[in-house]
Amino acid sequence: MPAKRATSYACPIRDVLDRVGDAWSVLVIMELAGGPCRFNALQRVVNGISARMLSVTLRHLERDGLVSRRVLETSPPQVEYALTTTGASLHRAMGELAAWAETNQPAIREARAAYDASLEAAQ
Amino acid sequence: MPAKRATSYACPIRDVLDRVGDAWSVLVIMELAGGPCRFNALQRVVNGISARMLSVTLRHLERDGLVSRRVLETSPPQVEYALTTTGASLHRAMGELAAWAETNQPAIREARAAYDASLEAAQ
Repeated sequence: MPAKRATSYACPIRDVLDRVGDAWSVLVIMELAGGPCRFNALQRVVNGISARMLSVTLRHLERDGLVSRRVLETSPPQVEYALTTTGASLHRAMGELAAWAETNQPAIREARAAYDASLEAAQ
Repeated sequence: MPAKRATSYACPIRDVLDRVGDAWSVLVIMELAGGPCRFNALQRVVNGISARMLSVTLRHLERDGLVSRRVLETSPPQVEYALTTTGASLHRAMGELAAWAETNQPAIREARAAYDASLEAAQ
């Protein structure tokens, strides 16, 4: 193999992985793929997320241009979040990986169990 | 929207994101997609990874059944790592996301700059 392979792919992918590697961001993107959603409703459906963490997650996603924020003229005013076009395209791109995860989870679990058993046997 | 949407997708995806969200794992998988590679050569091409971190990363990937390990009968003995069939399929599934990242990085950077500028203007 060559002494040095191209590693220029690292930068953009890391940038995105910052977001995709964050489970809360992924869950919020998946929920919003089902349609716009208010803050309180989002917190109910994203199991285990605190109001503070949801707020931070939404702010990151908004800053990245993946999620838009709209103040509704209700009383009291409420805020609705939605995927932007870019956010929706990220959700589609995540689809293949999500399908892979679903398909391969049993194989990964088996591999882990076999690995752990072989370590124990060696002791 | 319904009061409660299905969130059963969370589990398998989180499991995989543990690995895919880890930039070192992603870089190692991408390098090994180019063919089997010895430890020292991997460390040279994955910029900035320490021997200890590469060793931990490879052990995780091996435990997940994504990477295989083969001791070569050289003197001194060397160890060669390669993607398994499952690892190669993960690499393919990551392709769409990698392409998305490449395409959308400029848009994300612009969105961040605009967001930060609007925050400054509001101060």
